[in-house]
Amino acid sequence: MTQKHVQAPRTRQDCEALDRADPLAGMRARFALPDGVIYLDGHSLGPATHGALERLARAAGEEWRRGLIRSWNDAGWFDLPARAGARLARLVGVAPGEVTVTDSVSVNLFKLAVAGLRVLGSRTVMVQSDEFPTDQSIAAGIADAGLGELKRLEPKDALAAFGAYRGVIIRSAVNYRTGEAADIDAWEQMAHQSGNLIVWDLSHATGVLDLRLGQRGAKLAAGCSYKFLNGGPGAPAFVYARADIAQQLQSPILGWFGQKDQFDFGASYEAKDGAARFATGTPPVLSLSALDAALDAFDGVDLAQTSAKARALGDLVIMRTEAMGLKTISPGEAARRGGHVSVRHEHGYAVVQALIARGIIPDFRAPDAIRFGVAPLYVRHVDVWDAMDTLSDVLATRAWDRPDFHARAAVT
Amino acid sequence: MTQKHVQAPRTRQDCEALDRADPLAGMRARFALPDGVIYLDGHSLGPATHGALERLARAAGEEWRRGLIRSWNDAGWFDLPARAGARLARLVGVAPGEVTVTDSVSVNLFKLAVAGLRVLGSRTVMVQSDEFPTDQSIAAGIADAGLGELKRLEPKDALAAFGAYRGVIIRSAVNYRTGEAADIDAWEQMAHQSGNLIVWDLSHATGVLDLRLGQRGAKLAAGCSYKFLNGGPGAPAFVYARADIAQQLQSPILGWFGQKDQFDFGASYEAKDGAARFATGTPPVLSLSALDAALDAFDGVDLAQTSAKARALGDLVIMRTEAMGLKTISPGEAARRGGHVSVRHEHGYAVVQALIARGIIPDFRAPDAIRFGVAPLYVRHVDVWDAMDTLSDVLATRAWDRPDFHARAAVT
Repeated sequence: MTQKHVQAPRTRQDCEALDRADPLAGMRARFALPDGVIYLDGHSLGPATHGALERLARAAGEEWRRGLIRSWNDAGWFDLPARAGARLARLVGVAPGEVTVTDSVSVNLFKLAVAGLRVLGSRTVMVQSDEFPTDQSIAAGIADAGLGELKRLEPKDALAAFGAYRGVIIRSAVNYRTGEAADIDAWEQMAHQSGNLIVWDLSHATGVLDLRLGQRGAKLAAGCSYKFLNGGPGAPAFVYARADIAQQLQSPILGWFGQKDQFDFGASYEAKDGAARFATGTPPVLSLSALDAALDAFDGVDLAQTSAKARALGDLVIMRTEAMGLKTISPGEAARRGGHVSVRHEHGYAVVQALIARGIIPDFRAPDAIRFGVAPLYVRHVDVWDAMDTLSDVLATRAWDRPDFHARAAVT
Repeated sequence: MTQKHVQAPRTRQDCEALDRADPLAGMRARFALPDGVIYLDGHSLGPATHGALERLARAAGEEWRRGLIRSWNDAGWFDLPARAGARLARLVGVAPGEVTVTDSVSVNLFKLAVAGLRVLGSRTVMVQSDEFPTDQSIAAGIADAGLGELKRLEPKDALAAFGAYRGVIIRSAVNYRTGEAADIDAWEQMAHQSGNLIVWDLSHATGVLDLRLGQRGAKLAAGCSYKFLNGGPGAPAFVYARADIAQQLQSPILGWFGQKDQFDFGASYEAKDGAARFATGTPPVLSLSALDAALDAFDGVDLAQTSAKARALGDLVIMRTEAMGLKTISPGEAARRGGHVSVRHEHGYAVVQALIARGIIPDFRAPDAIRFGVAPLYVRHVDVWDAMDTLSDVLATRAWDRPDFHARAAVT
């Protein structure tokens, strides 16, 4: 029995003890969690914080309604992308001016990859064949538009293949389906050796893992803010561009929020310094205000603690689901995982519906993956324990085997 | 004296009479206008409606907080872009599926222009040299990225030059500085003759003019929803793509919200039908919900009435400012204007600050334009009259000549 298993909880009482000792226990009070729900879908949409709800009400009722156009200056709307960016910078381990909030992950991956190809003088855009489908289609779209040639890399020897080409890869730091964390050090070392660039997609990683992108040599990344960062549904995404390379990069989309002196209305376009040059149009201020306030939930939070807790909770999911005979498709080794764990079930969609009907909310990814998100700021050991009890009951009683649970609607 | 001048109000009492007879008078009650302010900046940021504020509170407090991930289906978040798009379609005079809400104007102009070039097999991207600077920089960015060659057209013979090339132009339907409305018929006729495409930027036009894009042959457009559409600060923008051409167009940014069966996670990308194929990443639901509700303010509104009222109010601004000796840079002919009128003043920035200090809110565009927005749903004749009285006083007393009014901050 390894060290890890010695500490694994065996009973609900063990879980209660772990929760009492949890240094992050106090963070849960920052969240406006609904009653009667155990929420294990923070890897898809994070819950609201009290601060975000209050801030949104103020942004709408005071800043927009009363302040009107004056709020661009008076309420600091202009500064929001940089302000939220600086706080995100801490969470990914880079300097404040190296992150800005803008657009969606899709649009940001496009801009970064195109800019990266250009600075390399390359046309090779790469993506793994098991990558998140949108990241694959963004790369394909770049190629289709005539801006590059697409190389799809097989997962099993992707790192070596990446090093053999000269170009840009779009790569998830944590896989959406399996929760597997990429070996950022190994990939950045290969990028350094080969002169390639990696555009990291941090969507499933930020807010859980202690990414330390700066010291690991990462240069470019985009990420989602509505998952473990709890920014609200469709909250604007972010861009990281390391200061030294940012000055050499040109976004293909030269919008006015990426421009110095945007209200001078001069004929020439001079891009802002740093990551801010990847801003485009006017940002969605209401959504951005909610995000900015949501990031308060990370004030005082040590990312070594979030990653450790996510791993402990993930271990608990794996231990319990394996005991039910379910196969895990996430890495068993906790250090190789992000903040969610996936298990397989032939009728996974129906099982998830049965769980939701009982107040347990995980999610499903085709064809057969049930994903349990273990967001460290608000999920407790007892929550996981109780959810697993319910899952066990659903499976034992075949509670999932109802026609209405099999009817596939759009799922997220 | 022309017909127009016979009806022009000469006194505040005349304005009151016009307001009593105004068929749109009842619409003002839909807006949550702050006390003590005459708001003439709806061409930059529209005010909040009661409906938008209520909807935003519900989207945050019930849908996000309580519904969490389930709200994508249960609260109809997935349908929001198409739903808001269908209502915008009426306002620009096209069919429901021809408009979707997505991204910012900048990003949408980029996608449409790149897709347009591709379908034409052309590399020529055009823009007028007096075009809104961002529209110019978007075109320049397309060229810089290697996707085309930029032609800047001189305004005085732009239409002929456009017809002489083969390619795509990005063109504002209403000029941001002068308020001049483009002759859409003439431009679309030239596009038809030359086989060119026009990507209309409707930002300063929608919600005021009776655009009737469908019957005028327009094929592609993008527009802003936070000006005369009152969607909220930085509310997501929209895309119009005529049904027949939409099916031939491919966005260079292939995000998951533009994809059929986005949760099947298949290897291939099949774009949605119609304008929806220009969607990219997850939309900012909170901002989008406010926009959707804000569009209720147009329920039952006839755009022939909005355009007529905007022109009458604009005439009033011109009549009064000319009487103060100010030069108008907007067309004197009301039919050639949008929903704002600009006048010149050497110290325009300071004059605007002095007006704002007195509760009158227009805006300023460098180097010397004071813009008065006359949004027909909530600006009354008496508002314009009173604002002009204040302007007259500010000028007569040189109230603008204070050091703090000259200090240029970021302005919008």
